[in-house]
Amino acid sequence: MRKGLLFVLSGPSGVGKGTVCKALQKKTTDLTYSVSVTTRQPRLGEVDGVNYFFRSREQFLDMIENDELLEYAEYVGNYYGTPRDFVEKTLAEGKDILLEIEVQGALMVKEKFPEGIFIFLTPPSLEELKDRIRGRGTENDSVIDHRMNVAVEEIALMQHYDYAVVNDEIDLACQRIESIIIAEHCKI
Amino acid sequence: MRKGLLFVLSGPSGVGKGTVCKALQKKTTDLTYSVSVTTRQPRLGEVDGVNYFFRSREQFLDMIENDELLEYAEYVGNYYGTPRDFVEKTLAEGKDILLEIEVQGALMVKEKFPEGIFIFLTPPSLEELKDRIRGRGTENDSVIDHRMNVAVEEIALMQHYDYAVVNDEIDLACQRIESIIIAEHCKI
Repeated sequence: MRKGLLFVLSGPSGVGKGTVCKALQKKTTDLTYSVSVTTRQPRLGEVDGVNYFFRSREQFLDMIENDELLEYAEYVGNYYGTPRDFVEKTLAEGKDILLEIEVQGALMVKEKFPEGIFIFLTPPSLEELKDRIRGRGTENDSVIDHRMNVAVEEIALMQHYDYAVVNDEIDLACQRIESIIIAEHCKI
Repeated sequence: MRKGLLFVLSGPSGVGKGTVCKALQKKTTDLTYSVSVTTRQPRLGEVDGVNYFFRSREQFLDMIENDELLEYAEYVGNYYGTPRDFVEKTLAEGKDILLEIEVQGALMVKEKFPEGIFIFLTPPSLEELKDRIRGRGTENDSVIDHRMNVAVEEIALMQHYDYAVVNDEIDLACQRIESIIIAEHCKI
């Protein structure tokens, strides 16, 4: 059986990765979405192995030690990561898998899994990205400026990716990603 | 302005290149189809520069001499070729161009234009290809065997291409080619 392909969808914070991913999930049934490992407490209704793999901090540190994570990061005191065995088992079953992760994490995956296909979701313009970050509402100007600076640095890392997909309209962005998936399966 | 991309659609004789190309032409308006140069006489209703560029044998040989053809071949006493200037002008206008040509011609284009994107149309199986060649009706068994041997040799050249598209259903084949075009435009 032919192995599945690993697609990594990334891009600057605020570009709409999560929204595109959800829209894609509604349209495309042939794609498995990676389940992350985390050390944070499960919220009401969250199921281990479905929403996340819930692990203790000690277990998580062991996973790092044993190279069981394709990437990981700490965020507000909790660890989040992508388990290598889940990804590899899914691929071995001939299923494609999609990871939706931050830019730094994607570059970690690229080191450990260079045969992955790396898609960078870009805003139509920096102005548009600023509007989207501002649109979240609660942040003051200095926070927005900081986020914009981070985004500009992240966009500079686009060169390490295989594809750039402009998120001008969610449907169009989804169509481009689906096209990339079909095309990659036709590659010789 | 961003330059257009050159797509080359090829594959063994009998696989259905022409049919797929016509179906694609009906669906996709953003693609310019290359106009070939030929030394054969125009048929009733054929227009120079639309169906073909009609040239004398002497003019054609000059074009070969001056490297004005991306590929050419002789077929039943007439020359057929792809004019380089038409392709380059179209690309410079930012338009994608599609060449539908034989396998040997495609490999000539690859030498002269390695930045092209080479798509190999394959039959679902050799059995299926034999049925299609047989389906044309007029040929006897030894002609069919000869054509099959040529096809098998041509399929062995697939490795020099970027993509393989199975022509199981015309609509699916078109969708794959359209996906390849969209994906190639997203490439970094």
